[in-house]
Amino acid sequence: MGYPRTVNNLIESFKKLPGIGEKSAERMALSTLDLDEDVIKFFADNLLAVKTKIKRCSICNNLSEEEKCDICTDSTRNSNILCIVEEPKNVVTFEKAGVFNGKYHVLGGLISPLDGITPDDINISTLLERVKNENIKEIIIAVKPSIEGETTALYISKILSNTDVVITKIAHGVPMGADMEYLDSLTLELAFDNRMKISE
Amino acid sequence: MGYPRTVNNLIESFKKLPGIGEKSAERMALSTLDLDEDVIKFFADNLLAVKTKIKRCSICNNLSEEEKCDICTDSTRNSNILCIVEEPKNVVTFEKAGVFNGKYHVLGGLISPLDGITPDDINISTLLERVKNENIKEIIIAVKPSIEGETTALYISKILSNTDVVITKIAHGVPMGADMEYLDSLTLELAFDNRMKISE
Repeated sequence: MGYPRTVNNLIESFKKLPGIGEKSAERMALSTLDLDEDVIKFFADNLLAVKTKIKRCSICNNLSEEEKCDICTDSTRNSNILCIVEEPKNVVTFEKAGVFNGKYHVLGGLISPLDGITPDDINISTLLERVKNENIKEIIIAVKPSIEGETTALYISKILSNTDVVITKIAHGVPMGADMEYLDSLTLELAFDNRMKISE
Repeated sequence: MGYPRTVNNLIESFKKLPGIGEKSAERMALSTLDLDEDVIKFFADNLLAVKTKIKRCSICNNLSEEEKCDICTDSTRNSNILCIVEEPKNVVTFEKAGVFNGKYHVLGGLISPLDGITPDDINISTLLERVKNENIKEIIIAVKPSIEGETTALYISKILSNTDVVITKIAHGVPMGADMEYLDSLTLELAFDNRMKISE
């Protein structure tokens, strides 16, 4: 005999989340018994709310409760620069770091021929529309350094090569505070390839 | 600017679970966007159901949807032997292993003077009641080997010393398949102290 049916059901629900196995799901399900009823009510409401209220911004494809997201409708931001990211969470990371004051464009994936992900599967056609209709002067490609990231960056720079838009890519290299001996060889290779002159 | 409010709310809800930090909560909340609506509905329903439907068995203190749990009401089980465990999840572990066919008693904690947990804070008075009213011949104490576990075992054996009940404790020692060099010194000490004669 195991847990009562309702507990087993909740364990199964937690297991639907990525990276959550049997043990973690069990621990989380049991812990909900110790939470106050209003906390659980709020939790359940939030689950339903996210599914029903969250849409994709019609301009940049970021998560939004409205048709257009807060960033796209913010007139204080520089709309001449577009930062291309893979996922909505990247937008949040950059916003928290406060390193960019332009607008974003969320691809929703990276080109990966091996996984059957073509340019048509990600949000590139809307990017072309934006370049045509908005006054965009620079596009900063800020996707992760990987085969897929490089392929995507190359593809975007190619299809925009006949426009006046300046296309840049964020720098890759050794992160601040890193212990050199723990860095992977690809990062070190990029760090050497992209070395900068500091002598006058 | 971060996530839309509903996403942030869901992240906060996930953070109420034990061992779930900002990053994990964020990953889980975002992943719910990819789940089907009926899966989410089921998840939310299960959260509420566990909180409202799950009670403690009035006999053994195990989790139950009824006033008495499935194990306590199972007449095919040996009701002369009682296995004392710390938490409901221990019952599930033993049941899955299929190593015990008696009844259980869930303490809901272990005596820990340092943490201010006294015998009155755990489910011991109901154990005394059961010994008085049920025909219990043996009590197997199956709590984890630790200071608190030993203290609790000692306390229970003491308060039942004037009864006819045989009190035993599950064996502690080297687990099957363990690499000796990775075992902690307490386990090894117990393994030596509890060594058994195999010569005739």
